[in-house]
Formats: sequence, C-alpha cells, structure tokens
Amino acid sequence: MAKSPDAEHPNKAYGWAARDASAVLWPFHFSRRANGENDVTLKILYCGICHSDLHYIKNDWGFSVYPMVPGHEIVGIVTEVGSKVTKLKVGDKAGVGCLVGSCGGCHSCDNDLENYCTQSVLTYNAVDRDGSLTYGGYSEAVVVDQRFAVRFPEGLPMDGGAPLLCAGITVYSPMKYFGLCEPGMHLGVVGLGGLGHVAVKFAKAFGLRVTVISTSPGKKGEAVGRLGADAFLISREPEEVKAAMGTMDGIIDTVSASHPLLPLIRMLKPHGKLVMLGAPNKPLEIPALPLLMGRKMVAGSAMGGLKETQEMIDFAGKHGITADVEVIPMDYVNAAMERLAKGDVRYRFVIDIGNSLSSSRL
Amino acid sequence: MAKSPDAEHPNKAYGWAARDASAVLWPFHFSRRANGENDVTLKILYCGICHSDLHYIKNDWGFSVYPMVPGHEIVGIVTEVGSKVTKLKVGDKAGVGCLVGSCGGCHSCDNDLENYCTQSVLTYNAVDRDGSLTYGGYSEAVVVDQRFAVRFPEGLPMDGGAPLLCAGITVYSPMKYFGLCEPGMHLGVVGLGGLGHVAVKFAKAFGLRVTVISTSPGKKGEAVGRLGADAFLISREPEEVKAAMGTMDGIIDTVSASHPLLPLIRMLKPHGKLVMLGAPNKPLEIPALPLLMGRKMVAGSAMGGLKETQEMIDFAGKHGITADVEVIPMDYVNAAMERLAKGDVRYRFVIDIGNSLSSSRL
Repeated sequence: MAKSPDAEHPNKAYGWAARDASAVLWPFHFSRRANGENDVTLKILYCGICHSDLHYIKNDWGFSVYPMVPGHEIVGIVTEVGSKVTKLKVGDKAGVGCLVGSCGGCHSCDNDLENYCTQSVLTYNAVDRDGSLTYGGYSEAVVVDQRFAVRFPEGLPMDGGAPLLCAGITVYSPMKYFGLCEPGMHLGVVGLGGLGHVAVKFAKAFGLRVTVISTSPGKKGEAVGRLGADAFLISREPEEVKAAMGTMDGIIDTVSASHPLLPLIRMLKPHGKLVMLGAPNKPLEIPALPLLMGRKMVAGSAMGGLKETQEMIDFAGKHGITADVEVIPMDYVNAAMERLAKGDVRYRFVIDIGNSLSSSRL
Repeated sequence: MAKSPDAEHPNKAYGWAARDASAVLWPFHFSRRANGENDVTLKILYCGICHSDLHYIKNDWGFSVYPMVPGHEIVGIVTEVGSKVTKLKVGDKAGVGCLVGSCGGCHSCDNDLENYCTQSVLTYNAVDRDGSLTYGGYSEAVVVDQRFAVRFPEGLPMDGGAPLLCAGITVYSPMKYFGLCEPGMHLGVVGLGGLGHVAVKFAKAFGLRVTVISTSPGKKGEAVGRLGADAFLISREPEEVKAAMGTMDGIIDTVSASHPLLPLIRMLKPHGKLVMLGAPNKPLEIPALPLLMGRKMVAGSAMGGLKETQEMIDFAGKHGITADVEVIPMDYVNAAMERLAKGDVRYRFVIDIGNSLSSSRL
C-alpha cells in the first residue's frame, strides 16, 4: 500500500495531476522528499508528453494510481545536490527519463540495464523504494538519485531534447544492442510518430540507409523531404512491399496497433532483425517458416539503461539531434492530450514548465 | 522442368525410392552423374532417417517430386575424387548433409552460409544445377561437389555420426550463432526427439546447464539419467513452469507441432533467446509485452553452412558425440517409417546401407 506522500515528504511541490480515469489534468499540490545525500533536485524547465502518458491517465492498462502527475521526459536545472553527488553540480542542465529507481544489486543493475531490473521504479505511477508514490515531470521540481539523472549537453536545445529521454533512448538502445548501427546498413522504420521520427534521425546520424514504412501516403514528403529518410514505403501496397523484399538489415517497429508482421519479416535480409517497440493488445502472429529459412528474429526492447541514456544524449548533442516538438504552456495540456489521441502532433508536445507552470498556480 | 536423370547421367545407381504419396519405398534403379573435377564420389555406408524424409515421401508439404530417393544424413567412403579436389582423397571417410549445391557467389555463400543461399540445392527432391533431380542417401553412392562433403572424424562411429549431418548441425549452428554455448549458461531444450536429444549432448559438451522441457513425463529418466540433462520440466505443469521463470539464457525449441510459446518466453532471463527449429503450420502467437519488457527474442534457424558443419562434426569427434540410433537394414525402411510416424524410435533410425542395400537388389 502506497503511503500518503504528504505525510512523508517535507518539501512542498506543485504540478498538474489526473484525479481519475476521466483523464482530465488539474493543478495539484503535493510534496517531494528532501534532497538526500545521493540525490539531485532539478527545477524542471521542460517536460515532453509521451503517448504512454495518455494511456496512463486514461487507465488504459488497468494499473493507474491517482492522483497521477505524468511526465518522464524531463529537462531542468540542478538546484541542489547531496553530499555524495559527483555526477552533477548546482546550475548544471540535467535530464530525467522513465526511471527513478532500481534495486541496484541484480544482474541487470550490475550491467547498467536498470530498465530491465524487475524492481525498477518508474518516474510516475509507481511505488518508490520508500513506499510513496512517484510523481512525474508535469511539475515544478523533481528529486532523484544521481544514478537516474543524466548530464544534458550544453549545445542541445532543452525543449527538443526533452523527448529524447524516453523516445530517444527507446529507439537508440535497440539499434545499438541489435547491431543496427553500422554505416551502410539498411534500416526500416515502421511508423512515423514520436518514436519513428527520432529513429530516422539517429539512424541517419549512424550512417544508415533508412526506409520509412507507413500506412499514410501523406507522410512521404515529411519523411524523405524533411527528416532525411532515403525512401518511403506504403506497407499496404503489395508491389512496394515486394520490391523491398530481402533488402533490410533490420526494422524498428514503433507501432502499437496490431498490424501484419509477415510483410516486415519478408523485407528483412537473411539474419535480419525485427525489433518491436510497441505492444499491441493481441499477440503477435509470426509464421515460423520465414524465420527459420532466413535465420531471422523478432525481438522486443523497452527504454534503455542510464549509462546508455547518457551515451544517447551525448550522441544527440554531438549530432544536433532533437525531437520535432510543439512547445505548449501547462494549461494547454488537456487540449494537447485530445490532439495526441487523434495523432494530431508532429511529433511531440513539450510542456514549457519553466515559463508556464507557476502562472497556472491556483 | 527436371530432366530425366537416366538420359543425362552415365553412372548406374541403385537405391530405394518412393514412387508417389502413398509413401511406400521400393527398390529403384537410376543414375548418377560422372565424377567431375571438383566432385567426390562416396560409397554410402550409413544414412539416417530424418523426420523430414517422412514428410517428403508423404508429400506433406505439397512440393514432393517422384520418384524420390530420400536421405540427407549420409556417411560413406570416398571412392573417386576429381582432379581439383583437395579436401578429400580416395579411402577417406566423408559425410554429406542436407545440401549438395548453392550459387557460390551470393552474400550467404561468401560467408559460408550456403544453407541460406536462395539457390541452394537440397540433397534430394530438388533440381540440381544441371537441371536433373537430386537423389538422396537411401542409395549405394552419391556424387557431390567437394564443398558439400565434410571430412568425417576418424574415431567417431559412422552409424551414430550420420544423423549429425542434419540433426547435429541444426542444433549446433543456432547455439553458436545466438551465443548459447558459453560454459555455465542455462539452456532449455523443448522436445526430446531426434533434434532434442542431440541438442542436450552438444549443450553438455559446451558446458551448459540443460533443462529438457517436454510434455511426456515418461522421458524424465531418459533425459536426466542417460542423456545427462540437469533437469526435466513438464511444460503443462504450471507450477514447474513457474519455478523455472526467468532462469534460462536460451531455449532451443525442436517441436514442429503448434504449442504455447508464452511459458517458454517467461522461462527466459532478460535478454534471453528462444530459437525455433520446427515450423508449425499455424503462425506462432507471441505476446509482445513479455518480449519488450525483457528485451527477449524469438528467432528461427535452419541447418548450417558447410564450414560450420565441418566444425560441428569435428567437435562431435573430439567429444564423442553421436546420435542414439537404431540401425536397421534397408528392407526395414517402410516399417521404420511407420514407427517414426508414431514417435516409436529413440532417437534416430539409421539405415545400414553398406551391409544391406545390395542384398535388396531386385
């Protein structure tokens, strides 16, 4: 049973929260823990709106806890550091992504894969190690163990950089782990949304040839013209699928809705890899023979560890990679959620917490 | 259109063939090509009966061509070599597996992965590069390009070694490719048949901890007592599955019938690998979320390349690995097929071609 955070924590905090599955966000007063010896406190400047925020506030997955302050694409300025903090100092730019805790002692944690620790603590809607609920980045400040904060590159825009803490690492990590990052490789990216458009950017920075695979012909100009993809393919057009058969080293599939996988498997070269980042409600249906006859694989990947998140954001800083964002004030968040539900955003909303949260205070 | 081999080939040959999908095998006179400059001719001594031989003679997959001489687990003695043959000499023991040809110039062939060459030629029921039908090892001799023959280790029994040319390489190759061969790893082996029992032996020789996963409680003694598996698990027992959750680095699944994959995926550790060697008729049903949350993968694998087949058989020679076989005379083959269809063999029939074929001659 989660403890009441107000009873536990000394520091007043303010943000916006959903109170129930009606999913409307309202101003909300709560508390944060005092900054511990290993903690850093961030004054939050920007927080991205991840599609999972929408699922969580609506309780789409059935395990939402209210009141809920969403947000796990957080960028801000360090305002306090504990006595044992070496990674950051007051005044530094820093970021917090999907995780704020893990056990610290398992095989995953020992290998910088906190995201696969079975006791990892999500940035919101989770029970923290002290028993209190975690609250996310739609708020003025956050207190986090230094392990779960990353240094934010000096030259990288903070608004466009915020979504990388979730969307960026979610696409970067599987490209690295599954070896889909060697110059000259051919990568398919399924779906051109928050994850997909960032996948295209990282893939191009790795030197890959990128084909965007979509059901929306209208996105072709965007994909090839502006994002720099090399090709665009309509997955519902058999001739286009046929022409792409056996040409791809890997495919990053960012689509959560159920969709046929056989055409994707056919587009892979022998030994090619299809990596799923979205989880449709229905089981994936995968014919075995095409897997066997080409030694192909279908894998999943979720987020990334903190060491790799730092590596990813440093890489983004070096290559000038940001998400394409629409920056909004805090009080636009409910309208933004409605637009997000309709797919009406290119490609990520980011809340300008620093300039708009305090004026929303009741 | 396949040419008539009798019209093409100068060398008389004799074996047993299925004439139609009634799948009865009969004595059959045909011909083999003359030994070319890159060819070796083997006098066949033993040929294993692979389960796919049964599927082929019954036309289960719909692309059988008759008359059909099955057999792709061939061991014999070299009786002739071409002028350019360096790999083998007359009198050597040699083996031929599933393949007798490939294009020789594609990316797969260049990387010793002839088994994934799209123009590879199967040892029987295929059209050879000269347009004639290929005939398999239920026969007195075979002529094959040296690339597709392997040197057979001196100390390895030829009868028990024959099935390794198919079953052995089929389990060995994915263990190597997917990195499931490091001492101390925990491997699950689903199904204890022709492939599964050999998988247990190779895994133990690699120094792995092996759990056999089966639906047949009666195989426990065999698996643990005789084959050396470390544990045995009934996949239909929820408590046994639960106890194994998150414990395996990889699973080699040898079962061709449709079966639930979720329990297997749950048995994998994070980053674990499920490798399918059988192809059920129905598509695999794989829930995406468990793949994502553990960065797990489901892959397929089929046979192996010739370089790796040589490596496998040398490894078998070094570690004394053979298949458990029931050696039968040629004229028992139809009875053996009936028993195979019922699963009544532990674990592979091998035809004693050398001592029984000629006496079957009409």
